[in-house]
Amino acid sequence: MSQNIKVYKGNIVFTKTPKQFTTLENGYIIVENGKVKEVTRNLSKHYKNYEIFDYDDKIIIPGFVDIHLHAPQLPNNGLGLDKELLPWLEAYTYPEEARYGNMEYAKKIYPKLIKDLWKYGVTRSVIMTSIHKETTELLIDLFIKSGLSAYIGKVNMDRNANKEVLEDTKTSIKETEKLIKKYIGKSELVKPILTPTLVPICTPEIMKGIGQLAKKYDLPVQAHLSENRTAVEWVRQLHPEQPDFGSVYNEYGLFGQQPTVMAHCIYTTDNEIKMMQENKIYVAHCPHSNFNLASGIMPLRKYLNLGIDVGLGSDISAGHTLSMMSTIVSAIQASKIKWVEDSNYDPISVSEGFYLATKGGGKFFGKVGSFEEGYDFDAIIIDDDNLYDFNKRTLEGRIEKFIYTGDDRNIVERFVAGKKIEEPNF
Amino acid sequence: MSQNIKVYKGNIVFTKTPKQFTTLENGYIIVENGKVKEVTRNLSKHYKNYEIFDYDDKIIIPGFVDIHLHAPQLPNNGLGLDKELLPWLEAYTYPEEARYGNMEYAKKIYPKLIKDLWKYGVTRSVIMTSIHKETTELLIDLFIKSGLSAYIGKVNMDRNANKEVLEDTKTSIKETEKLIKKYIGKSELVKPILTPTLVPICTPEIMKGIGQLAKKYDLPVQAHLSENRTAVEWVRQLHPEQPDFGSVYNEYGLFGQQPTVMAHCIYTTDNEIKMMQENKIYVAHCPHSNFNLASGIMPLRKYLNLGIDVGLGSDISAGHTLSMMSTIVSAIQASKIKWVEDSNYDPISVSEGFYLATKGGGKFFGKVGSFEEGYDFDAIIIDDDNLYDFNKRTLEGRIEKFIYTGDDRNIVERFVAGKKIEEPNF
Repeated sequence: MSQNIKVYKGNIVFTKTPKQFTTLENGYIIVENGKVKEVTRNLSKHYKNYEIFDYDDKIIIPGFVDIHLHAPQLPNNGLGLDKELLPWLEAYTYPEEARYGNMEYAKKIYPKLIKDLWKYGVTRSVIMTSIHKETTELLIDLFIKSGLSAYIGKVNMDRNANKEVLEDTKTSIKETEKLIKKYIGKSELVKPILTPTLVPICTPEIMKGIGQLAKKYDLPVQAHLSENRTAVEWVRQLHPEQPDFGSVYNEYGLFGQQPTVMAHCIYTTDNEIKMMQENKIYVAHCPHSNFNLASGIMPLRKYLNLGIDVGLGSDISAGHTLSMMSTIVSAIQASKIKWVEDSNYDPISVSEGFYLATKGGGKFFGKVGSFEEGYDFDAIIIDDDNLYDFNKRTLEGRIEKFIYTGDDRNIVERFVAGKKIEEPNF
Repeated sequence: MSQNIKVYKGNIVFTKTPKQFTTLENGYIIVENGKVKEVTRNLSKHYKNYEIFDYDDKIIIPGFVDIHLHAPQLPNNGLGLDKELLPWLEAYTYPEEARYGNMEYAKKIYPKLIKDLWKYGVTRSVIMTSIHKETTELLIDLFIKSGLSAYIGKVNMDRNANKEVLEDTKTSIKETEKLIKKYIGKSELVKPILTPTLVPICTPEIMKGIGQLAKKYDLPVQAHLSENRTAVEWVRQLHPEQPDFGSVYNEYGLFGQQPTVMAHCIYTTDNEIKMMQENKIYVAHCPHSNFNLASGIMPLRKYLNLGIDVGLGSDISAGHTLSMMSTIVSAIQASKIKWVEDSNYDPISVSEGFYLATKGGGKFFGKVGSFEEGYDFDAIIIDDDNLYDFNKRTLEGRIEKFIYTGDDRNIVERFVAGKKIEEPNF
């Protein structure tokens, strides 16, 4: 009898495809070596001798995946949302990020961030830190200790930002390489990612350097693309030699030459969209951020129709919450307003929102975000008993209610790659 | 020493005007006979012998006011938001409302609704029930017992809806009058309101009858106005004799002849807006509903610029939450997207959102929703200790963080008209 097999019993909900939920009442998930082997209604004799973790009437869903968030901005959550992107960065974001040159400060915030992600059932995330190597290392070390999974990238920025968050170009590249070398291969679950933050605050030299590191170390890339009209216009002025924002990244090997997440993608050109398709860019859709910074709404349905991979991002602190339930609701709401403007683009459904927050973003990590065979067993257990329903509901209905009206209190256990994750004790 | 004087100490936040918060750290609110007498930094000798209720570092704000919600739709919260208004009514809303012909069913739901409002610090609300007189009486009786304040109206509907929620015109008017007579003058805090639900589902006869009752008993009125394009077009077809939706209500004495709340007001004509101004219509802005039913976004700034009174409505279950914090955030987000479309209309600020959810809606109840002299002392006590902030924040910042990132756990006490309201024990 293999010690590496575990059986989980409960009401199972996941999305193989965006268009519908796969549900199973009182079903079993068989997990071998941390990966899903089978989801089944009837447990075959073979497995009956294994311990069964019985979650009774609770619901088992894949863990949430947040593919765009800024770790140092946590203290700014719910503050200072009275400006658009560029003045907001100067007034609130850069001053906060500057503080992470101070290890003592980071030691107060970063443990809390990981606990909050744990609390909200976010089992995987793609994270930008600040320019600071030491406190980025702290975050990586804490993540490894927590058992949660993340890609974590120290940002690079060497022009057009507040002085206190500007780096010397060569030093930035050198520090980034040191950081990479320290963590490559160190953890299966927590990995470095290259982070040329945003074209107008990265010189061509730094973008080139980061592109070379990405290739040399075979690492993924994350950055921001076409978040608002002013930023797009700024890139146009800084880079008249390129047709658009995306083409600047592309010039430096930062637009899909490695697996790449681009956050926002609101004001993309036809040419950018074509490149996004061809280069298999992952899009991080951050609906709360679209609203809060008055950026405008990303054309989600358009991307989905074109087969572009999309996941959801909380984008704290332009988004104000790490709750992926709230982020799903926001994505659905945003898509409905987009539909009011142009009825060619149908609103997204609840199952599509759920898909984006699980399998959609999970794809960036590999086989993550679903309970299909071979997928990492990332799961959260939902106790929706308090969500007021003496009316008998379908599992789809219960999940819908959880997404719209539940909160962290309803998430009672978390698993990453088959391992149960306790609340971090740091 | 008057027994009717009470002194409350804490960090005080309210909005006299939409444009800014009035804040006072470690201040005192002196309440006499349930009404605010004074907000002061220094307690005069005169009051020092009264018992002081000391809330220490907690924040005291006016109770929230929800000026549009559908009591019987509570079980549908977070369900079935995949349709626009009219098909949504047929598929989800009417079947649920039909159940309130059954007293046993209502006894399961209505106590829970009041507890939820209590939980979220909603001290005043303007409520539509179903067509059913008996269960509406149950709700009124429970409200009176709870100590929370509400206007409650049995809806009237006698055409173009599902059979099980259609009334006979004369019976509807007669039952409505019986209900009114039973409750007029019975409670200072819980009062009847007339509710000709929506033009296309009310015949001219029923609107006329309800208008006459409003006048005869000097009662306020609530209804829905221009929520989506299809509804507006439907009214145009049913009432070619009138220039617009609002004019139909106006014809029957239901458009400001008595104090009137109109919910939604998204697709209003210039003529309607002019009448809204002249007739002093209160607008219930329901941003989550605007999003969830893909109705479109109400032109909030336009109304505010014109001096039209606006409050916020959760509009459950087209809105999915009774949280007025979430509703404020949604109103701000909606206004930002409106600004993206038309930069003539500035987004609303946090203080404006707060104002709408307190003094804005409170105005429908009289001097409610502020701590100015003579206002009813409706208050909630906010414990924001868990909202993670070792950084010293201003009171404005703390309230902003509470609105964006807090929840019911942060609301620890409630007062209505000077009386502390405990969790209902029914």
